Amino acid sequence: MSHTDPSGAVPASIDVPEAARWLAGRVLRTPVLRAPAIDRLAGARVLLKAENLQAGGSYKMRGGLFAVGRLAAAGHTGVVAQSTGNHAVAVALAARRFELAATVVLPVDAAPTKVARARAAGARVVLAGTTVEERLAVARRVSDETGHPIVDAYDHPDVIAGQGSASLELIEEAERAGTPLDALVLPVGGGGGVAGACLAATGRPIEVYGVEPHGCDSLARSLAAGRPVPVTPAPTIADGLRPSCVGELPFAVLRTRLRGVVRVDDDEIAEAFRLLLLELKVLAEPSGAAGLAGALRLAADGGLRSPAAADGALRSPAIDWGLRSPVGEQLLATAAGGPRKRTVGVVLTGGNVEAELVARLAASARLEEEVVAA
Amino acid sequence: MSHTDPSGAVPASIDVPEAARWLAGRVLRTPVLRAPAIDRLAGARVLLKAENLQAGGSYKMRGGLFAVGRLAAAGHTGVVAQSTGNHAVAVALAARRFELAATVVLPVDAAPTKVARARAAGARVVLAGTTVEERLAVARRVSDETGHPIVDAYDHPDVIAGQGSASLELIEEAERAGTPLDALVLPVGGGGGVAGACLAATGRPIEVYGVEPHGCDSLARSLAAGRPVPVTPAPTIADGLRPSCVGELPFAVLRTRLRGVVRVDDDEIAEAFRLLLLELKVLAEPSGAAGLAGALRLAADGGLRSPAAADGALRSPAIDWGLRSPVGEQLLATAAGGPRKRTVGVVLTGGNVEAELVARLAASARLEEEVVAA
Repeated sequence: MSHTDPSGAVPASIDVPEAARWLAGRVLRTPVLRAPAIDRLAGARVLLKAENLQAGGSYKMRGGLFAVGRLAAAGHTGVVAQSTGNHAVAVALAARRFELAATVVLPVDAAPTKVARARAAGARVVLAGTTVEERLAVARRVSDETGHPIVDAYDHPDVIAGQGSASLELIEEAERAGTPLDALVLPVGGGGGVAGACLAATGRPIEVYGVEPHGCDSLARSLAAGRPVPVTPAPTIADGLRPSCVGELPFAVLRTRLRGVVRVDDDEIAEAFRLLLLELKVLAEPSGAAGLAGALRLAADGGLRSPAAADGALRSPAIDWGLRSPVGEQLLATAAGGPRKRTVGVVLTGGNVEAELVARLAASARLEEEVVAA
Repeated sequence: MSHTDPSGAVPASIDVPEAARWLAGRVLRTPVLRAPAIDRLAGARVLLKAENLQAGGSYKMRGGLFAVGRLAAAGHTGVVAQSTGNHAVAVALAARRFELAATVVLPVDAAPTKVARARAAGARVVLAGTTVEERLAVARRVSDETGHPIVDAYDHPDVIAGQGSASLELIEEAERAGTPLDALVLPVGGGGGVAGACLAATGRPIEVYGVEPHGCDSLARSLAAGRPVPVTPAPTIADGLRPSCVGELPFAVLRTRLRGVVRVDDDEIAEAFRLLLLELKVLAEPSGAAGLAGALRLAADGGLRSPAAADGALRSPAIDWGLRSPVGEQLLATAAGGPRKRTVGVVLTGGNVEAELVARLAASARLEEEVVAA
């Protein structure tokens, strides 16, 4: 929280290109994947940045490693973190890499695989409450007792910059392939990843969208209110997207740079999960699949098909805020006189999911197939 | 069958580097992935070439595209293929790419997802019998009627060379990373892929192993007999590894170049499937996971841990043929006086699997976790 100044200006200290340079060779350069079936469903070229294949199983490794690495270089001997899971795993792994002590605070209902991964990395794991406030209170106490700084899961410039490096790699790879991104879609937890995406896209005509589960829409409400607004998160299979409030620093970035927020429900997230599993052949956790769910919702509402349709996105019931930077007019293709196929990037943010949930979601696909076949 | 000469010499026409050059830019350069949990289980550095992410969902795309592309260049207007699935899908997709007609013959019990993918690619799909002989008879009749050549699934030099390009990419990427392969492990159907791997490894001290399900061990029996020996394939979840006999051309390559055959059972394949899904975060079909199952079996028997232990591999009940090229002595590390960590490459050959089977295999993982926790 101390990282924002009262004016709400974005601190110059969030340096995505610097994070990307620092992380090169320290994290996996994850592949950008495509599946014809997903392109067809979206009516667009969909480039999927597979950060579920990242070390630690999520793109949180980037922010965690960059932040912890800088703290280690500054002489700290330990760190404290709290999260619903992936950030805690990332900080635990990063601390081990730099030989720092780590205490991570997870909710009592955290996914067991995330708890196990944090423990396996050698961190002290504290389970506390179910809300971010409860975890933060514990984290602050531990920080006071140990003198070790808290690495916030999203309200931290190095964490935002690190997460943004995934988007920057995707943006640059799309450019190298001759298909620069028109849009970039990420799921929203505390907003750090999507804020990093906005900063990664700086200076390029890329529309950045955030995706929130219905009832976990602190960002959409905050953007509408002009200030961070907490919510009581509704139940969702996307356990990583349930912080009760968007972070202040991400909000300061997003309020002037984000094009819109797309809301999705659990059925849409589950369908995106199955597409990724059976068509792209990768395992995303529901939170990690939510970006694709949002991109498909956007496409269904016409937001990805053509510049003209993109303007219609504002009228979509799924999008209740957006169009700060109407760049649609620039997107008309010269070829064939019609609108060219748009390219949308999606960051698959994580892949740490319980076997039981995989079985349940995959079994639903079979039921759907049977319904279709009947 | 016409591609082998009576002396059993390998035709110079199987040119893996040429296939790799031709395929560059035409197929996806799939990533090489690692998971710490898999390294720990193997006691080795395990580099997994994710050909399950390849276009068409398997590395069969490489051989199919290279062979069909050459036939198209030679003026053919159509092709015929038979397989248990992935080769048929690959030839169908390749034919569409080169605007050739395609007829593909699949078994009546083929995985529905493979039938659907072949049809979606625009091929005429014929379902015939359950054995390779039945399918071959139909394919030959179609070929006679149409004048279109058969692209054999493994007994074809361009198919072997194309499949081998996946191994060559893995070998070269491991060298670039400074961790050249000591061993390379692939599943065996008709033997084309593992023959391509042997040719890709030519001139390098890499031990190449094939993996067969128990009771689908035509290659192991053929190597012991010195000539191709058919089997009546036993039931296995690895539907792609059930040809009744290794191909003559692959056999001609393998009999002098393969280090050994590892037999695995369905439980081992299922465990490899789950490791790939939950630790590596990718979906392999059981046939595609069999290579990892074999590598882990080899490791459990000591074959991957050290040169000394590798010699013990011959005494493993899982390996009944091998050690044609003992290179273990060359592998001793100078550092620390002990044997250095070995690097084993595994090609994850495909990812086309039914949702129902995914659900069933993932649910088994949950049961195992519960047993462990109890």
